[in-house]
Amino acid sequence: MKNYIIHDAWNIIEEGFLPEYNRISESIFSIGNGYQGQRANFEEGFGGETLQGSYMAGVYYPDKTRVGWWKNGYPEYFAKVLNATNWIGMTLIIEGEKLDLHTCQVKDFKRILNMQEGFLERSFIAILPSGKQLRIKAQRFVSIVQKEIGTIKYRITPLNFSGNLDLTLFLDGDIKNEDANYNEKFWENIYQNVQAETATLTIKTKKTGFSLCSATTFEIFQKGNPITLETSPVQRDKYVGHQLRVPLVQNEETTIYKFVAQVTSRDYPAKDLITQAQKALQDAFAKGFETLKMEQAQAWAKKWEDSDITIEGDIAAQQGIRFNIFQLDQTYTGEDARLNIGPKGFTGEKYGGSTYWDTEAYCLAFYLATDAPEVAKNLLLYRYKHLPKAIENAQKLGFKNGSALYPMVTMNGEECHNEWEITFEEIHRNGAIAKAIFDYVQYTGDKSYLADYGLEVLIAISRFWAERVNFSEEKQKYVMLGVTGPNEYENNINNNYYTNKIAIWCLAYTNEIIGFVKGTQPEKLQALFEKINFQEEKECAKWYDIVQKMYFPYNNALRIFMQQDGYMDKEQILVKDLDKSNLPINQKWSWDRILRSCFIKQADTLQAIYAFENEYDIETIKRHFEFYEPRTVHESSLSPCVHVVLASKLGLKEKAYELYLRTSRLDLDDYNNDTEDGCHTTSMAGTWMSVVQGFGGMRLKNDTVAFSPIIPEQWRSYTFKIMHRGSLLRVRVSKENVLLENLSDNVVNIYIHDELCTIEKNSSLMAKGK
Amino acid sequence: MKNYIIHDAWNIIEEGFLPEYNRISESIFSIGNGYQGQRANFEEGFGGETLQGSYMAGVYYPDKTRVGWWKNGYPEYFAKVLNATNWIGMTLIIEGEKLDLHTCQVKDFKRILNMQEGFLERSFIAILPSGKQLRIKAQRFVSIVQKEIGTIKYRITPLNFSGNLDLTLFLDGDIKNEDANYNEKFWENIYQNVQAETATLTIKTKKTGFSLCSATTFEIFQKGNPITLETSPVQRDKYVGHQLRVPLVQNEETTIYKFVAQVTSRDYPAKDLITQAQKALQDAFAKGFETLKMEQAQAWAKKWEDSDITIEGDIAAQQGIRFNIFQLDQTYTGEDARLNIGPKGFTGEKYGGSTYWDTEAYCLAFYLATDAPEVAKNLLLYRYKHLPKAIENAQKLGFKNGSALYPMVTMNGEECHNEWEITFEEIHRNGAIAKAIFDYVQYTGDKSYLADYGLEVLIAISRFWAERVNFSEEKQKYVMLGVTGPNEYENNINNNYYTNKIAIWCLAYTNEIIGFVKGTQPEKLQALFEKINFQEEKECAKWYDIVQKMYFPYNNALRIFMQQDGYMDKEQILVKDLDKSNLPINQKWSWDRILRSCFIKQADTLQAIYAFENEYDIETIKRHFEFYEPRTVHESSLSPCVHVVLASKLGLKEKAYELYLRTSRLDLDDYNNDTEDGCHTTSMAGTWMSVVQGFGGMRLKNDTVAFSPIIPEQWRSYTFKIMHRGSLLRVRVSKENVLLENLSDNVVNIYIHDELCTIEKNSSLMAKGK
Repeated sequence: MKNYIIHDAWNIIEEGFLPEYNRISESIFSIGNGYQGQRANFEEGFGGETLQGSYMAGVYYPDKTRVGWWKNGYPEYFAKVLNATNWIGMTLIIEGEKLDLHTCQVKDFKRILNMQEGFLERSFIAILPSGKQLRIKAQRFVSIVQKEIGTIKYRITPLNFSGNLDLTLFLDGDIKNEDANYNEKFWENIYQNVQAETATLTIKTKKTGFSLCSATTFEIFQKGNPITLETSPVQRDKYVGHQLRVPLVQNEETTIYKFVAQVTSRDYPAKDLITQAQKALQDAFAKGFETLKMEQAQAWAKKWEDSDITIEGDIAAQQGIRFNIFQLDQTYTGEDARLNIGPKGFTGEKYGGSTYWDTEAYCLAFYLATDAPEVAKNLLLYRYKHLPKAIENAQKLGFKNGSALYPMVTMNGEECHNEWEITFEEIHRNGAIAKAIFDYVQYTGDKSYLADYGLEVLIAISRFWAERVNFSEEKQKYVMLGVTGPNEYENNINNNYYTNKIAIWCLAYTNEIIGFVKGTQPEKLQALFEKINFQEEKECAKWYDIVQKMYFPYNNALRIFMQQDGYMDKEQILVKDLDKSNLPINQKWSWDRILRSCFIKQADTLQAIYAFENEYDIETIKRHFEFYEPRTVHESSLSPCVHVVLASKLGLKEKAYELYLRTSRLDLDDYNNDTEDGCHTTSMAGTWMSVVQGFGGMRLKNDTVAFSPIIPEQWRSYTFKIMHRGSLLRVRVSKENVLLENLSDNVVNIYIHDELCTIEKNSSLMAKGK
Repeated sequence: MKNYIIHDAWNIIEEGFLPEYNRISESIFSIGNGYQGQRANFEEGFGGETLQGSYMAGVYYPDKTRVGWWKNGYPEYFAKVLNATNWIGMTLIIEGEKLDLHTCQVKDFKRILNMQEGFLERSFIAILPSGKQLRIKAQRFVSIVQKEIGTIKYRITPLNFSGNLDLTLFLDGDIKNEDANYNEKFWENIYQNVQAETATLTIKTKKTGFSLCSATTFEIFQKGNPITLETSPVQRDKYVGHQLRVPLVQNEETTIYKFVAQVTSRDYPAKDLITQAQKALQDAFAKGFETLKMEQAQAWAKKWEDSDITIEGDIAAQQGIRFNIFQLDQTYTGEDARLNIGPKGFTGEKYGGSTYWDTEAYCLAFYLATDAPEVAKNLLLYRYKHLPKAIENAQKLGFKNGSALYPMVTMNGEECHNEWEITFEEIHRNGAIAKAIFDYVQYTGDKSYLADYGLEVLIAISRFWAERVNFSEEKQKYVMLGVTGPNEYENNINNNYYTNKIAIWCLAYTNEIIGFVKGTQPEKLQALFEKINFQEEKECAKWYDIVQKMYFPYNNALRIFMQQDGYMDKEQILVKDLDKSNLPINQKWSWDRILRSCFIKQADTLQAIYAFENEYDIETIKRHFEFYEPRTVHESSLSPCVHVVLASKLGLKEKAYELYLRTSRLDLDDYNNDTEDGCHTTSMAGTWMSVVQGFGGMRLKNDTVAFSPIIPEQWRSYTFKIMHRGSLLRVRVSKENVLLENLSDNVVNIYIHDELCTIEKNSSLMAKGK
């Protein structure tokens, strides 16, 4: 754990240069716009520890699988998020000395991520080995208004000398992924060109054939006016730019504006890329940096208006939650249904892939509540479009009959993970994808989604469950053997409670939706049945039978559903009784020891109770929480949030707050010592969930939103906003009361502490605190 | 499955050149002497599919581990058997045309492995592209008398021309392992030198620093006399040799003799290697090829005298069993306690490592019965010497208190396998190592081994079991969680019957041996206890408690011990009811499907019954065999032999014979389509076991050997020999009777069909067949 980020409500601030934390800061201070993203690398380059990283959404490379021992069914490749053209680059040589913070003395270093307006700022004084001093101020952003555009304002003031700056502004496409399995480069050169003041570079991925065209131009100002300088072109393989000699005058500021437009063959025919990039570039250049920056601030203001959470009395928590919201909004905008939410967003390349069950189980709720329904719908359509691949994937594993198994990790719908205990056995992911359909429809009321898209996915998933279970003659029940549950510290277990539970929920829900569509759009149902050769009577009856006769391990003495068969055979120790030197167990223990211990990586049985809370009475929830929470080590970033929600429901304020702290500043404080590889983007939705569903107690009751807020002792108040069915609600919770504001022109009904209330349009309502 | 090897009692014969099977033949026709081995590559090289392979026992390389996903506790490297200097090499260029069977027409090709005399022979007529015809006859062997020596006799007769042969005789150390994880070369150059008629090359392994010095000389004969030719030296990096121009005369034979001596730094100080190699080389050269070959034949005759098995009426079975014995004797001689029996012997480099549990569970019985007791003792001492590493290995996995976990795969005592479900969980290997001590002492009567070596190993293994189990409060029994049994088609299961069984057997046996040593060598016991800080009262009591309260899954209705917890929850299908297109399931099914099926890769519960047969009455054995055999797919080469032994005991002749066929010609007929990578050397001991313990019904009863022979319908008779406590016994089983011959000068007591008989020295006894 680190503690070097300065606490501030709206900004992420690093003061003083900490090269040993530079890779961490590069992750934390990343900027993105859902289309492209950039780690907080230095424009002028850095000779010290750095991971130069620029990423384009949806552009990936199928890196040949690396395994120790091949298992039948493993995929041929792992889809890597591609490190792409370095568009921020500039080389500054001052009278023969290169500006590089690795070799300078650095003073007054400050790096700020301005979350309110969406830009990155950096300022410092560099003292070159010769003693020359320069003040640098750099600002940059990728535009959330013009997604193709990234722009930089880079100011230089010589403080104790006048002299020449030899400046190279460049685009560098000769990039290698740090985690390439076989140390290959993934890009090849397609086109490069340098004109008087623009440079253009097109590179193309091997195998997948994605083309990326980047075009750049620049402008240099002195004394408030653009100046014209002689430029010479620079080119080498996959590298284009301009060289200029800029005269610097002591104490006078020179400003370099760099504009870059990047377009890909995902959006345009390859032949049009250069034209499209030039067009976007000229538009941006015409507007200029300050106008683009103003547009950026306005657009972010709009985003915050819908999604901000404020916390009074706890500046660290305030900064944490805003950082999480900011990163989520930077990562996914919902404009492009081909995209999804990568585990590290645009902040790093580790793990690769773009889509995990995180999306449905953790992120969907955030986008549903803070954005237009289309955003969440696109997340669902993403899976709908991958259905044929999911069916193919199941076929590879021996399933027939149109069963679908969605991949554990994917980019284009194909599985790309390769650990048998996860790839083949962590099948509960299928359940989260089905449950997301329920959640979306329940939240938005968009029942048309079911007949048009949802039911086809539900049936394919239900068919999978029906094939995957088997009837145990011994138990006279259906069992599900050889699975890995959400708790990945158990592998190849039998009858994981969560998996069995979500499986029968899927089967029952699919039967229900078949009934619903039959009643509302029978002709669509018929067409679907024909398309997928559905044997209604037989298949539905089988599903019903499984729902009735599914086996769930249960301990009669404890009155607890067991996480899996045989769980109580384990030595029962609590995390608190473990010597601290054992933690985290995933770094200290060998895998077999972890597996046979009772310790739980992340919410598992409790994940089921969280997902299907209404089916359990409060005493049952309490018993399960009290049993499982003390055995949970929370070594997944996805774990604490679920426990926060349940602890809040049980009124365990202290516990909820303690767990909240583990999620909200995970990356800012580098809890797990791995933020240098990128931020834990998807788990950031868990922080939002902790506040809104946890402390705020937000639930849906049919078509209505319900709140049962509590407030941690450490906070004075907190507020959050919810968009629900076209109405924007603001909830302010203080120790004394709950203020509910209806910021919309509709009358809104809500539950507050289980009491149904009506709030007139643009009015508010005050309830007592709890 | 292939069927191209010609059936013959003493020879392995390939007739007609089958380049598509060349890699398979290279494995099958391999030669070795326990010190070095050589695949049946062509001396003149081959442009087609080939795996050039020369191996030196005990010379390995720690190849950096390759994994997809790292798990804590994985070893840093996998020990690879090293492909070493190609010593057989010669290049033949006839009037500008290279002799290469890949580019010639080949006639009358014949390859023979003469098992009786221990050499490889090859003859063919090559028609070069120019039409020139040559007859070639090549013989070679590595000497089992002078282990450092390999020698070749290569005869060339031009059939339709006279002309010049440009001959290069060389040693090539610029060798790469086919299965190098990172495509590296493992050898570096140390010394190379070419003199008038000798060439010397020393290469050294990276990291491990093993030096291998090879020295070669030659002699060329025409018309029965040596001829002298001008030679020129040839050298390049790690390559030394001589070039000569040999005049060939039509229809006259030219004979090339090549002699090679190879010595390593395992046996001599590095500085002496060249001298030692030269010395061995000169000795061999002085003897000449024919003398060396005669010595070889005599030495093999002696080996066969003690270990031959004959089968009348089934030439394929005869060839199969001799091939297996021949390969076992080629692989391990027991002279060097630092060596062990690699899974592929000297016939290939796949899998690497040298030592698996195969040694103790399968091979030991063969060497005990066919060789001097020292041979088997050296196999045991190998593990004794590795005890400190086994304790270290257990410590890495979190065990304390002197517990030992022997590695799954090793070269020097360190674990080098890296699949968590095997490396960390297939812990039953520890049991086999303990059981081998019992088997050795029971067979040889060498009880001194216990106090000197055995007990220390037994205690360390027992300590492991005592730490590895835990007491289940739920079951009020000790359980063993998270293991992989011998049946590797189940991973991370609980309470594997075999593992639990062998664990408590170890605990009980160790307690018994502590008592024995206390009664016989109390001072040695005391010294040992002090050395290992043994708390006798406490530890022995704990072990006793575990023995009493170990949990064994049992099905009351079936009266069957279950292979593991939950086995009967699986869908119960029999192999015979599976559509053949599913077999072998390890090639057709994804891993998860295999894991959740009821199908058994290899004997598991039956392995326990085999190991502890005396503890089960015949009805119990029958019930278990009838339950498990129909569920076993025998997709391990180690499986059928155990079933043969039990089937024979149960009088199921047909079943026993059917299963025997799966083991005896596994490599000769390339059953598993993988002989090209090397032979299944360790499982060859299973074939021996099938005949002797299976059909022959050999068992030990205290200090006495017992036989209960049956004979398959397909055979007229079979014979085998057993060395036991200094007496050589020959057993001949025919349909009518059993002839027992005592070939020794001792009076021998044996059981035949449970009846105790005495056979006078050098006499025989006839019993009725069964």
